[in-house]
Amino acid sequence: MSMDFRTWMKATQDLCEQALSEFIPTSSTVPQRLHEAMRYAALDGGKRVRPLLVFAAGRLFNAPEELLRRAAAAVEMIHAYSLVHDDMPCMDDDALRRGKPTVHVKYDEASALLVGDALQAQAFIVLSEGAGDASTKLAMVRVLAQASGSLGMCGGQAIDLASVGLALNRAELEQMHRLKTGALLRAAVLLGAMSGKTLSTSEIEALDVYSAAIGLAFQVVDDILDATADSATLGKTAGKDAADNKPTYVSLLGLDASKELAIQLCKDAHGALLPFGPQAQYLHDLADLIVQRQA
Amino acid sequence: MSMDFRTWMKATQDLCEQALSEFIPTSSTVPQRLHEAMRYAALDGGKRVRPLLVFAAGRLFNAPEELLRRAAAAVEMIHAYSLVHDDMPCMDDDALRRGKPTVHVKYDEASALLVGDALQAQAFIVLSEGAGDASTKLAMVRVLAQASGSLGMCGGQAIDLASVGLALNRAELEQMHRLKTGALLRAAVLLGAMSGKTLSTSEIEALDVYSAAIGLAFQVVDDILDATADSATLGKTAGKDAADNKPTYVSLLGLDASKELAIQLCKDAHGALLPFGPQAQYLHDLADLIVQRQA
Repeated sequence: MSMDFRTWMKATQDLCEQALSEFIPTSSTVPQRLHEAMRYAALDGGKRVRPLLVFAAGRLFNAPEELLRRAAAAVEMIHAYSLVHDDMPCMDDDALRRGKPTVHVKYDEASALLVGDALQAQAFIVLSEGAGDASTKLAMVRVLAQASGSLGMCGGQAIDLASVGLALNRAELEQMHRLKTGALLRAAVLLGAMSGKTLSTSEIEALDVYSAAIGLAFQVVDDILDATADSATLGKTAGKDAADNKPTYVSLLGLDASKELAIQLCKDAHGALLPFGPQAQYLHDLADLIVQRQA
Repeated sequence: MSMDFRTWMKATQDLCEQALSEFIPTSSTVPQRLHEAMRYAALDGGKRVRPLLVFAAGRLFNAPEELLRRAAAAVEMIHAYSLVHDDMPCMDDDALRRGKPTVHVKYDEASALLVGDALQAQAFIVLSEGAGDASTKLAMVRVLAQASGSLGMCGGQAIDLASVGLALNRAELEQMHRLKTGALLRAAVLLGAMSGKTLSTSEIEALDVYSAAIGLAFQVVDDILDATADSATLGKTAGKDAADNKPTYVSLLGLDASKELAIQLCKDAHGALLPFGPQAQYLHDLADLIVQRQA
């Protein structure tokens, strides 16, 4: 029997929190201030969407929990580092994240730079340590590194930076988000599934359709929330994209069409999961969660 | 027959340059500006000390060239990313590196941040792709990630930051440099040797004695050069440590004792190589090079 989705989600978020706490050196480890700041950046925050995707995808093929814990912590460390660097004055210059002062505000800019750098390294430490089949783990390193680098997340951020003030069309906007947020969401799904077995081409293709749909939906909903919610609900500064003159789905398609698009993408994601049967239930529910979230 | 050291060094530097050029996406690959800046940061510069160590250590156990090329490129990408981030205004705020404008001066701060982030990811892409035994390669990922992270290079930089204006004693200064530069030099030696065979504990211990000695020598000589050479010779701003009130070996021990220390460390490094016989000749010569360099 499967646990109820909300119960599973809460248990998995707790598991992820424990894994992150275990896999980042304690704040009494030298250099203490760096480790304290790494923990500040990564622990006790966020919806843990990527770790949830890792664990939900792990259920497809009964992946061992220890490998899933490492994969979930690693992908969340990459996400956390990207937020720390993204919030810095030379990037988005944001003072609030997950309802708390950003790392460069709480500590200082140099520390924020090092925290991000060290969290990225820590992700690869976590994936490369511990038990498990070496070729599986090496393939997981490869998937995570590719998703993080210049043809993945960093590349998307570079396109985002270059796009401020430009009138991107929809295809260009999708390309940017496919790299900036989509690549790491895809990696989360693949890492979870790979933890269970070596994937066939058709399995990768089906998971990629799912990941592309939720990745895009995630961004469309982000844009909707940025345009409609307040900062207290979001835990970050609302209305910032419009203020920064950044292209968004809402500015491009309007609010109603953006909401319709999110719903359609959710259906696409559900459809891609059909070959996996009932084992895919939590991935199905996560697509709903991504579209229905209020923050 | 071994090649003459200078001939080998030049050939190996060329091999490293080709590997870096091959393993970083071309500047016509989207996003073009990011890839152009990554190539600007990593190509055509530096003495390539870490790649030279990789290739020299690879000779101990006849490591295959393809794996050495990947290891050398990966360790140099980590080094290059650390320089890009280190030069940023919130860290050392340096405008000149390897005789050229630093990345944030040539491009902009946000690009420098992303270039560093993407180069770190690229190092793990390069190590995890290509042919070779998976458990060897996974172990190489682990060594490089540990050397780069909060208990290695990033940790050393955090201690360095925190030490400005403080009167570090010699033990504290050594601890800082052991992490900040020593960890990555050690990784270079280990990656080269591991490319040839699985290392025994005694082999690792001997190589660690060598690495610790050249790592410290490298830093002592850096401090000597910072105090005595001019910016044009160094290709970076000279006298900066003294101006920033950073502790150095020269400020702590004086110039003459620093020079004697460098010579003693070189002897220690040579001694550690004795068990490896004539196959260690280039590692022996590299220790000389590190102590005798003028820039």
